[in-house]
Amino acid sequence: MSVTVIMVAPMTATVITVYDLGVGRWEPDARGRLGRAAMELYRERGFDSTTVAEIAERAGLTERTFFRYFADKREVLFGGSSELQEFLVSSVVGAPASLPPMEAIAWALSAAATEIFEERREFARERQAIVGANAELRERELIKLATLAAALAGALRERGVSEPAASLAAESGIAVFKIAFERWTSSTGEEQLSEFIRESMDELKVVTAGPMAAASGA
Amino acid sequence: MSVTVIMVAPMTATVITVYDLGVGRWEPDARGRLGRAAMELYRERGFDSTTVAEIAERAGLTERTFFRYFADKREVLFGGSSELQEFLVSSVVGAPASLPPMEAIAWALSAAATEIFEERREFARERQAIVGANAELRERELIKLATLAAALAGALRERGVSEPAASLAAESGIAVFKIAFERWTSSTGEEQLSEFIRESMDELKVVTAGPMAAASGA
Repeated sequence: MSVTVIMVAPMTATVITVYDLGVGRWEPDARGRLGRAAMELYRERGFDSTTVAEIAERAGLTERTFFRYFADKREVLFGGSSELQEFLVSSVVGAPASLPPMEAIAWALSAAATEIFEERREFARERQAIVGANAELRERELIKLATLAAALAGALRERGVSEPAASLAAESGIAVFKIAFERWTSSTGEEQLSEFIRESMDELKVVTAGPMAAASGA
Repeated sequence: MSVTVIMVAPMTATVITVYDLGVGRWEPDARGRLGRAAMELYRERGFDSTTVAEIAERAGLTERTFFRYFADKREVLFGGSSELQEFLVSSVVGAPASLPPMEAIAWALSAAATEIFEERREFARERQAIVGANAELRERELIKLATLAAALAGALRERGVSEPAASLAAESGIAVFKIAFERWTSSTGEEQLSEFIRESMDELKVVTAGPMAAASGA
């Protein structure tokens, strides 16, 4: 399965359309060049201090070309969110029927790790540093994750899971993913994202396993 | 313990200051009147369509008085966030040393439910409906919850809990709180928030308890 999540979306379809409409000259790998130029500048100057004009200049292209591929400079970092969501939702819906809710989530997250993120570790690291350095981007990331959690709860309900189990598994699963992703991007070792996900899932089991007497302790 | 979380903060200190500075006439319960007027208008017209001038007029006060109590019209809904955070953090830090991470979180959430939220159910319901109807407010709520989760992870680390257990317990605990809070505000029965929290904590145990073989299933 080939799903483009982050930046280097297949350019063919878009470019052919643009070319057919005659609104621009064909530029080889324009999207990739713009994306790489943007990431360089976000790292060097910060996200807020970078303009689309500067990104286009660094890529040797025009602002108009930039806006053919990205709605704004934030989309360089968040362009793949809906594809990731579709991938995760269809993985949860299609996971073996025997899997309990949290395991269906774990299954989907591990599939995304292997098929989408693993080969983009360098990009993921850079992106994490850029997003982490900017309050507005951190907020956008939270909204993305909350939207993912809501979509995963819906996918679990499609599997017949009732509420609140569906939302609890989805929200906690996204918490696991967030923490595993942060550990993966900040790690200098060779451990794969899917291993961090498995470790965090196991750790969640450990921290939630205690007797719940405390909930009545107030 | 008396902690003001949402809207009806003790007015005495502020009002005395204002009076001493001679910048305004003393108005009985000005903060409470402004808050109630704001909530009425948000419900009637929506948050976006309500102006501070209209809130002040409905309360029989001036815009200037409004801005003595609230930085903006959003603060009517989010004014108590930092007090809630302080309450939860100190509850986690002060929870019995014997409690495992997730139970220390459950302890703090139950304390907040009983001591802060229970007597404000009507306000909480209205607030939930207003926040749920507005994308910007929903985002602000997510940011508030993420900030709470980060603070609770810090409180667990103060208790000697290592990472990633601290962040996993804190993030999952906030997921439990969010879902329990939504169930409580949308319920028409008499069940208390602390009971919804306990049920959701137990449910989280159930959904995470399965064997984690699925995490390697991708």
